[in-house]
Amino acid sequence: MRDFSPDHRWLSLNTATVRRQGDLAQIVEACARHGIRAIDPWRDQVAAIGLDRAVRIVRDAGLELSGYCRGGMFTSDAAHRSEVRDDNRRAVDEAKALGAPCVVLVVGGLPQFSRPGSAPSKDIAAARAQVDDAIADMLDYASQANMPLAIEPLHPAYAADRACVNTTGQALDICDRLDPQRSGLLGVALDVYHIWWDPELMPQIARAGKDRLLAFHVCDWLVPTEDILNDRGMMGDGVIDIRSIRAAVEAQDFAGFCEIEIFSNAWWDRPMDDVLRTCIERHRTVV
Amino acid sequence: MRDFSPDHRWLSLNTATVRRQGDLAQIVEACARHGIRAIDPWRDQVAAIGLDRAVRIVRDAGLELSGYCRGGMFTSDAAHRSEVRDDNRRAVDEAKALGAPCVVLVVGGLPQFSRPGSAPSKDIAAARAQVDDAIADMLDYASQANMPLAIEPLHPAYAADRACVNTTGQALDICDRLDPQRSGLLGVALDVYHIWWDPELMPQIARAGKDRLLAFHVCDWLVPTEDILNDRGMMGDGVIDIRSIRAAVEAQDFAGFCEIEIFSNAWWDRPMDDVLRTCIERHRTVV
Repeated sequence: MRDFSPDHRWLSLNTATVRRQGDLAQIVEACARHGIRAIDPWRDQVAAIGLDRAVRIVRDAGLELSGYCRGGMFTSDAAHRSEVRDDNRRAVDEAKALGAPCVVLVVGGLPQFSRPGSAPSKDIAAARAQVDDAIADMLDYASQANMPLAIEPLHPAYAADRACVNTTGQALDICDRLDPQRSGLLGVALDVYHIWWDPELMPQIARAGKDRLLAFHVCDWLVPTEDILNDRGMMGDGVIDIRSIRAAVEAQDFAGFCEIEIFSNAWWDRPMDDVLRTCIERHRTVV
Repeated sequence: MRDFSPDHRWLSLNTATVRRQGDLAQIVEACARHGIRAIDPWRDQVAAIGLDRAVRIVRDAGLELSGYCRGGMFTSDAAHRSEVRDDNRRAVDEAKALGAPCVVLVVGGLPQFSRPGSAPSKDIAAARAQVDDAIADMLDYASQANMPLAIEPLHPAYAADRACVNTTGQALDICDRLDPQRSGLLGVALDVYHIWWDPELMPQIARAGKDRLLAFHVCDWLVPTEDILNDRGMMGDGVIDIRSIRAAVEAQDFAGFCEIEIFSNAWWDRPMDDVLRTCIERHRTVV
């Protein structure tokens, strides 16, 4: 297991962590100030400053990417099917332009939440079948661009409105169905927030193996959690045994960035430099 | 599958649903007014009016019980171990006095939340091992009283603070380890709120079978969920395909009460009779 205590060379910042404090250009500048080597930007943040400018500032800052957030939201009614496909193809194109190592997929929950305007449904099994089909389609396109897709299982609390893929095992089942040859083009993005509770977690991380472990995200689960989406904790402030999970991932030879992604009203209210300083300190001491 | 549309003979009221509107005596009177035949009372509500009086009013009203809420909170540090054991033995005794068909078990999450004052831990695997041991111990005691224990898997959102048994499969694994002979004394209490998201749900219900299906609870999952504990929905107001889950349970010959348990600040603010009228109407139309 890598020793993170001497420095933060393996820290990547998911730019949603400070999305209220500045635009992508300001975040990139702050990363330079703090010696952060990598980011995972969100599509809306890229769009806000323009893809060309985003490509340029990332390159000029010498930043690596640990992913691109996000593709997915595959579930919809028939009327929104082509929107889903086109949107996800653009995500692949943007990731390619930015030099991202993968597109992170949040697959969508029930269609009325995933693609607003879609006819409402309570059929989560149908949603899951649709996700399989849509990832198969996106994988064809992404393979031509040689752009890996990382399915992110989301906590079951988001099953209705964000992702009906809710366990690592379920995400790996999709990978095995669509990419049995383990090409490296389909895998998982594991975020401790979503997976820490899973009694099957450790065997599933071993099942994933290096080929399927495309991204690793950290934050913490707070007790109490005041807001189901935007009250995630800074590493060390909650109940997740983060180091044990990182150890399991690294036992599979995962050697990529450890990406900090915190959706938090509390941390969004703090100055960007304070947040980054705290991220770096916790990365070295508790991750 | 039973037809619930003509009447509400299979409706049981979990008394937490109206716990802020009155004490157990008032709830029992309201059930009589509304022709509700069964309840599942909580220990604090029984204690508030006294066990003897609770036994008497339940008997005098001719009410059946569909369960007794709740035993569990098994996880603790060593200093709280005897408190856990004694507390759970009392739960069995009370359930026996009340004529309950089972004690519902909410097993506890990490020890500092399950038994406040316990030394803090982030080791959920250790918590789970402790739950196994404690249920084995309680099962010895409950078997002598011929009182079945119903393990309730709780939604993963409660893994830290309420229950580290989070899937039906995990609960059934415990049952199979501790009661391989399927004696009828150990099984599960399935609440649609906790289990609806689970991709393994349908095969696990079939695995449970009639012997292990000791209780069935309904409410609904709202989007958005404003409060992680107390914003559960009235059946029909959320996204759960309740009838499909009931069909799966009844396909295993489950023929017991369908218990309504709603923790909701919104419904606790409504008059008791309004809530019960709505429960009955939704039981007949959407459950």
